[in-house]
This record gives sequence, structure tokens and C-alpha cells, in this order.
Amino acid sequence: MAENLAVADLGSNSFRLVVFTANDGWWKRTDEIYEAVRIGEGLGASGKLGSEPMERALSTIDVFGHFCRASRLRPDEIDAVATSAIRDASNAEKFLFRARERSGLPIRVLSREEEARYGYLAAVNSTTLADGCVLDLGGGSMQIVQVASRLPSESQSWQLGAVRMTERFLHGKGPAKPKQLDELRAHVAEELQAAPWVGKGGERIVGLGGTIRNLAAAAQRAAGMPSFGVQGYIIERAALDDLVDTLAALPPSERRKVPGIKPGRADLILAGAVVVRTVLEVGGFSGIETTEAGLREGVFFERHLADTGEPPLFEDVRRTSVLNLAAQYEVEPAHTEHVAALALGLFDELAAAGLHPGDALERELLWAAACLHDIGMSVDYDDHHKHSRYLILNAGLPGFSPREVALIAQAARYHRKGMPDAGPFSPLLRKGDAARLDRCATLLRLAEDLERSRDQHVREAHIAVENGEARLELVAEGDTAVPRWAAGRETELFARAFDRALVV
Amino acid sequence: MAENLAVADLGSNSFRLVVFTANDGWWKRTDEIYEAVRIGEGLGASGKLGSEPMERALSTIDVFGHFCRASRLRPDEIDAVATSAIRDASNAEKFLFRARERSGLPIRVLSREEEARYGYLAAVNSTTLADGCVLDLGGGSMQIVQVASRLPSESQSWQLGAVRMTERFLHGKGPAKPKQLDELRAHVAEELQAAPWVGKGGERIVGLGGTIRNLAAAAQRAAGMPSFGVQGYIIERAALDDLVDTLAALPPSERRKVPGIKPGRADLILAGAVVVRTVLEVGGFSGIETTEAGLREGVFFERHLADTGEPPLFEDVRRTSVLNLAAQYEVEPAHTEHVAALALGLFDELAAAGLHPGDALERELLWAAACLHDIGMSVDYDDHHKHSRYLILNAGLPGFSPREVALIAQAARYHRKGMPDAGPFSPLLRKGDAARLDRCATLLRLAEDLERSRDQHVREAHIAVENGEARLELVAEGDTAVPRWAAGRETELFARAFDRALVV
Repeated sequence: MAENLAVADLGSNSFRLVVFTANDGWWKRTDEIYEAVRIGEGLGASGKLGSEPMERALSTIDVFGHFCRASRLRPDEIDAVATSAIRDASNAEKFLFRARERSGLPIRVLSREEEARYGYLAAVNSTTLADGCVLDLGGGSMQIVQVASRLPSESQSWQLGAVRMTERFLHGKGPAKPKQLDELRAHVAEELQAAPWVGKGGERIVGLGGTIRNLAAAAQRAAGMPSFGVQGYIIERAALDDLVDTLAALPPSERRKVPGIKPGRADLILAGAVVVRTVLEVGGFSGIETTEAGLREGVFFERHLADTGEPPLFEDVRRTSVLNLAAQYEVEPAHTEHVAALALGLFDELAAAGLHPGDALERELLWAAACLHDIGMSVDYDDHHKHSRYLILNAGLPGFSPREVALIAQAARYHRKGMPDAGPFSPLLRKGDAARLDRCATLLRLAEDLERSRDQHVREAHIAVENGEARLELVAEGDTAVPRWAAGRETELFARAFDRALVV
Repeated sequence: MAENLAVADLGSNSFRLVVFTANDGWWKRTDEIYEAVRIGEGLGASGKLGSEPMERALSTIDVFGHFCRASRLRPDEIDAVATSAIRDASNAEKFLFRARERSGLPIRVLSREEEARYGYLAAVNSTTLADGCVLDLGGGSMQIVQVASRLPSESQSWQLGAVRMTERFLHGKGPAKPKQLDELRAHVAEELQAAPWVGKGGERIVGLGGTIRNLAAAAQRAAGMPSFGVQGYIIERAALDDLVDTLAALPPSERRKVPGIKPGRADLILAGAVVVRTVLEVGGFSGIETTEAGLREGVFFERHLADTGEPPLFEDVRRTSVLNLAAQYEVEPAHTEHVAALALGLFDELAAAGLHPGDALERELLWAAACLHDIGMSVDYDDHHKHSRYLILNAGLPGFSPREVALIAQAARYHRKGMPDAGPFSPLLRKGDAARLDRCATLLRLAEDLERSRDQHVREAHIAVENGEARLELVAEGDTAVPRWAAGRETELFARAFDRALVV
């Protein structure tokens, strides 16, 4: 039975309605409406919501209400949350009354603590962050939460959002002046003194929100990195410095021309970049790790994981990502699980025999590739290995870095044909990754060969290494003509990956 | 209830086992095993199957038998068919006895007429061919069937397969000599005199078989055309001449280096190209149209379409392709059909108002794009318009030309965001196609906007054109805030496509 939750996120810069659907073993976003309302416009100076921003906001909220009713969502399937701008404006009550009346949506205004908590839930459920900080930068405010052993400890909120900081410090029509940038930096640094714990509890900082996502996209483009989303992408200090320089040299109207920068954010992005950069400086972080999850996901996770205890966290984010993606396609679970078991068994035996290091990370990537190797069959049987790669790259695997996702995707791609190769993803790889990919793809292909008939008749496979040969021995139910034929074709691949002749 | 059919195609060059699955409204290939057995090797000279080719064939048939049993296919779900080489060899009975005994497969040897019929069924069910010829070029034989009003009329089979012709005329290890090529051409032309009807019944000729598919891939690469399979690709005479020149200048061992040529076919492809080129010459055809369907699909169609009468044909191949692909994804049929109805209604009214030509082909492409616009949601909600394009291009739409598939895919891609553009597919487009794409994408987006809530509340939409304005009027159940909001964003797009201001 599908469960739906529509989250309306009424932020200071943009309003967004996102529908999440959870079903048998998987969840995903199934609809989204976005409007750059910018309700926080002018709020910093006046302390009030302006009449034009309010009108834009009301008509968008109205559309959200109609959408929820038309989609036959029940009241308990809708959660509309408002953040900084609406929380802080002196005329918020009047606006909320009109908004609730007109849209029928049960809008709740989040406290600073609640807003910080949702950001924390989004970050810790979409990354492997255990110790460090979560930074959520919005249009109106910025929250930082310190995380220790995956639990929230310190937390603080500041009025340092990108809309506010732009209006206060970078309001000119020309290029930004060094003095303006310095004033903004000094202001942020001074504000951060309220949280001396920032950077003391771990080296990692995870960033949320549209500004961070957009900075990551621009940094990725500038570095010439292959892009399949920004999940897990780390924006290094130097890259952020370069972006600030590039953006500051342009008038706001031209900043949209910087590759990766979204036109709707072009006038805000410089202030956002300076705020983030100053946090890195003050906290001593070398870079900030992007997650695509945000406040909305936090609201969804709180409900979706209600049974898991407090706080509501996935036990293992990486494992959950892989199983979530696999469950979205009608792969044969018995086949997939058996391929994974055979591949991991061979991996362990070859490691024990000293043919490779038996690295735990590599083993996990092999497991993930095995779970996902056939999902491309939902596209077309022909080239389904390539379609599996496409689906993995495009859906993403929160908790894995772009490098790891690329390795999983390439291992799945080479589970049928061709010589394993990093292809367009080589800029992401590290030393030893080409050999890792070779081993993963080879073992996955061998396991798939042993399960070529999809009948689990080859119950076990063992490898004995002697005299420079690797002898593959099968424990099977019934005959083994198909697996022997299939595995017999992989000698070239095996020799390349493990430097031994394979004998089946 | 899923129906399965495994077709083992025991050809003169390669053996292939293909599993077809048909289910609620769709069918597709779900598994495939391929082995380049080349059982016809040496047959031309000796009239017999050689002992080495027979051993290779037996062990592959053995694997097929094991695979069918392991996949729990019932005997009536398996059809193993043998063609030219096995039909013609003087020692075929002995081989067949061993093959049947060893594999348990009920192998039947096709007569020339049966083989020609399956080629005909494959071609007419995967293209729009109504009048013309079907050419099926295998390793051992070549069949040509004349088609009139989609029905078979004349038919003839020749021992002009690519393996046979290579062994007889192009057996050297160096580049092919002009004299050898001339002798092969003369031989084919002489043989074709037995079928004076070739080319008299229509200008179109559709080609089947691995040789044709591989020639198409090479011609596509040589022309720098974007490639998403070769279905519907037309190999022009001049392109075939260029390929023959390129291949002939190389020794057989180097022909695999020609872009697009498969290593396993490299030594046969030149003879195949000359045979096809001579058929075009003799029959007065300007080019040959590729279909990816082959004998195996013919065998499947005969069973799958058994209830449709004789011969078993899809009533409308293009419509069938679109509905078959749509049915493979869990799109909401009520939403998709309503979007299609709204888009086509607007198309017709704008044509009646003289704002565009109202071309029937364009209307069909719009319908197809509407049926398929949301299939990408199975990949991920984000960028699902791009995923729809990927799925359309990769699954293919038999009956449509590559140009038409590209237009459908691009219209689906632009159903949400961006300014419609042919992108990498521009080399495929003709004059006027950019405007066609603009109109299709705009109307699809507008229809999607009107159905943004997926509730079919906007029952009808009408467009009245006056004073340079196009007024969109909605007949709706309940309120129309969401559709009006959504459609209101398309004024720029509409103005570009129809040169009129849109008023909602």
C-alpha cells in the first residue's frame, strides 16, 4: 500500500511542494512544484513581509492547495512548513491567516530548533556523517547543527540567509567591491562567535539548501568533473575562492552566465558563497560536502522512519540507498541476491588466497553493483548493462561519493560485455581504482555467468589457487553445462584482473 | 499472465536463443544467448557440415537445452528452428539426430518457404512496408519476398548467404581484388534473373539479418549520424559503395577496424555488402531500409498474433510500438490519455485557425510523445523528461524512422522545461522539423499544464484566435487555479511556436 506525503516548504527564497511516495521497500519523490516566490524580499530592512512578495506567496500557496485537493491527498498526507522569513516578520500572523484561509493548507511555522532538526535529519539520513557539522543555508536564515555519533548536540540559527545578506551587503548593480565582501565576511565571522563549538567536533561539514547545491554544480563544472547530480560532491575551499572571485567580478545581472549557476539564483549566489566560505574559515573545514536532501526530506524522514526510534535515522544509509533503488525495479530478487552471494564469496576466497587486498570498501561496492546490475532490464534487454549504469547514475545513491557511485555504475555496466574501463568517470577516480573496477566487474560477471539460467542451481562456487592457476569449482544441483559454458568465456577478463589463468 | 516463447535460431553463421515475454499489453525480448558457431563453414565446397563446425554447434545447442530446462520453460514454450546450412547439408539428418538427442530440443528444419515467411512477418510487423520487397540475408541463404498491400506475393530463396559467398569468391587473406568483386556481382546478378519481379512492385526494400544490421551501423557511423540503434535506418546506394570500397581495400583481418563493423562479422561483411548492393542495382532500389527484427521475431509474431487472422499482422505497426512501450511502464493511463486528448484537441483547433499546417504526420508524433512523455518517471522524478527521452531512444519505436523517433523523444524531453531544440539529433532532421518540434513540445507542455493535478478536471480546452491573441478557454469540473497557473507560464514558448500571445 503506497503512502504519500506532500511537503510544502515555504522558504524565504522559494516555495516548493514535493510529494514523497513510499511503497513496498522503496521511497522516492513523485511530484514537485517549484516557484521562486522570494517572500523574504525587503524583510531585512523593514522587518515586514512586503505587499508584493505576499501577493506572490499567496497565489503560489493557493496553487499548492488546489494541487493537494486535486491529487486527492488527505489532510494527514500534507505538511506545510514555513521557515525564517515568515517566522521573523512582524506581520506574519495576518499573512498566515490569509494563506490558511485561501489555500486550506494547515501551515505550521517552524521554530529555529525545528528547522535545524529537519536539516539534521536530512543530512544524517542522506550521508555517512557521524561526527561533524550540518549547515543549512536558506534565503533568510542559516542553521548549524553539531553532530556526534550521528546524534545532534549543539545547534544554532542565524539570520545569515542569502537573500538577507545580499540585500544588506551586496545590493549594488555592478561588480561587488572588495570592501563589501570584507564587510560581509566580518559580519559572518562575528556572528559565528556565538557558536564556538563549530569545527571542534569533527572535520566534516555537510551542506544543505539550494545555494549549496548550486555552488556545488558550479564548482563541479569549473573542475571539469563528470556530473550526475551533486550528491556527495565536496566543494573545496580553493574552488569556493575561485567562484567568489569569478562572481564578484561580474555585475549581478551577468552572474547567470557562470557555468552551473541557475538564473533564478544568480543575484543571491555570491552572498551565499561568501557566507559558506567564511564558515569553512572559522570552523577550520577544508571543504563542504553537498547533499541534495533538504528540509523537505527531513520532514518526510521524520514520518517515514517514525518506527525506528528517536531520532528517526536509517541504520545504514549506504545499504538503504542501494536496496531502495533495487526495490524500485522489478528485478528478480532471488537471482540478484544469489549473484551477490556468489560474487562476494569469490571475492573473499581470492582475498584469502592473497590475489587482492580484500578491501572492505571494494567489497561493499561489489555488493552494491551486484544488487543493481540488472535494473536496466526495465529499459530494454539489449544493452541492459548500459541502462543499469544510466539508472544508477541518474537516481543517485545517497551516502556514496560521486567516485563510489561511478565505480558501482561502471561495474554494473561491465557485468556482461566489454573490457572494464572508467570511461568518462576517470577524473573522479583515485589510485588503484582501475584495478578495483577490474576486480569488481570480473567477479560480478563470473557470478552472473554461474547464475546465467537464473535458477540458483549453482549453490556455491569455490576458487582454489595453485601453480599459477585459479580453479573454479562449483557445488551445484543438477547439471552445470550453462554456467560452465558461460564462465568459460571469462578467462581473458579474469587473467587481466587477477593475473592468473582461470580453469572452470 | 506472462507468456514466454524461447526461439532458438540455428543459422548458418550464428546460433541465438531469444526469449520473448508478452504480458498485459506489452511484449519484449527478455533474454538472449548468442554464439558465433558458423556451422555453415566449408559447406559450400563439400556439401556437408564439417566435423569441427558440428562439434561447436552441438555444444552450443546443448547449452540452449540446459538453459531452457533451467528457466523452467515448458516444451510448448520453446521453438528451435534451423535454416539454410542444416537444411542443405547432405549429412544433416545425422547431425539433427545427435543434436535432438543431446539437447532435448525439438529442432525443426525450416523449408525455404517457411524461412521466407518468417522474414516477411518480421519485416511487415516492424516497419510500415506495404508494397515492395523484404530481403533476408543470412550466412547460408538469401530470401526475397515481394509484398503487395502488406501481403506476400512472390518469394524466392538463393544460396547467396554471406558465409557461402565469402568462401566462394572472397577467400584471400589480402585486400579483395576488383576481379573477385566483379565475379561476385556477376554471380548475384545472374542468380537474380530467376526473380524478374524484384523491384517491380514498389520502390521500398526492407532488409533483415545480422549483415544488414551491421552494414547499417557502419553506414550510420560513416555519415556521422546520431545512433540509437539501426531500426528504420536507410542505407543508401552511395553509402554502400563507400563501405564496399573501404572494406575491399583492407585485408579481412583489418576490416574489424572500420567503425561500426563487429569483429565477429568482419571477414563476412564485404561479401554481404556486395550481395546487397547488387540486389539494389538489379531491382532499381535507391537504398535499403534496416529493421532490427529478424527470423526470431517472425516466429514469435506468428504465435503472438495467432488470433489476428492470416497472415498474423499488427493492424498498425506505429501505433502498436507506442502503446507497447507505454504499457511497459507504470504510467497513469488516465492522465496520459487525457494529456494526449487535450494536446490533439489544441493541435486541431490551432490548425483550423490557420496557425499551422495541421500535418497528419506531425499530429501522430504529438500523440506518440503524449503517450510516452511520463515514462521516465520510472527512473527518477527529477529530470524525468530527460529520462523519458532516454527510454524512448533506447527501446526504439519500430515503424518510425530514426528522424521521427528523435522528434518524439525531443518533444517528450521538452514537456516540462527548456526551449525545444533538436540538440544532437539535428543531423537527422528535415526542413520544417524545428518548427514541428516547437509546436509539438509546446502543445504537449500546455496539455500537461492543464492536467498538472492529474485529475482530469479540465475536461476540454479550446483556443480562440482573434486580434493576434490566442485565448485559451477551459471547460472544467471544479476550480482551475492549478491549470491556469501552470499554463500561464508558457506564454514565451507559445509565442515562439505559434507567433501569437497566449491568454489563459
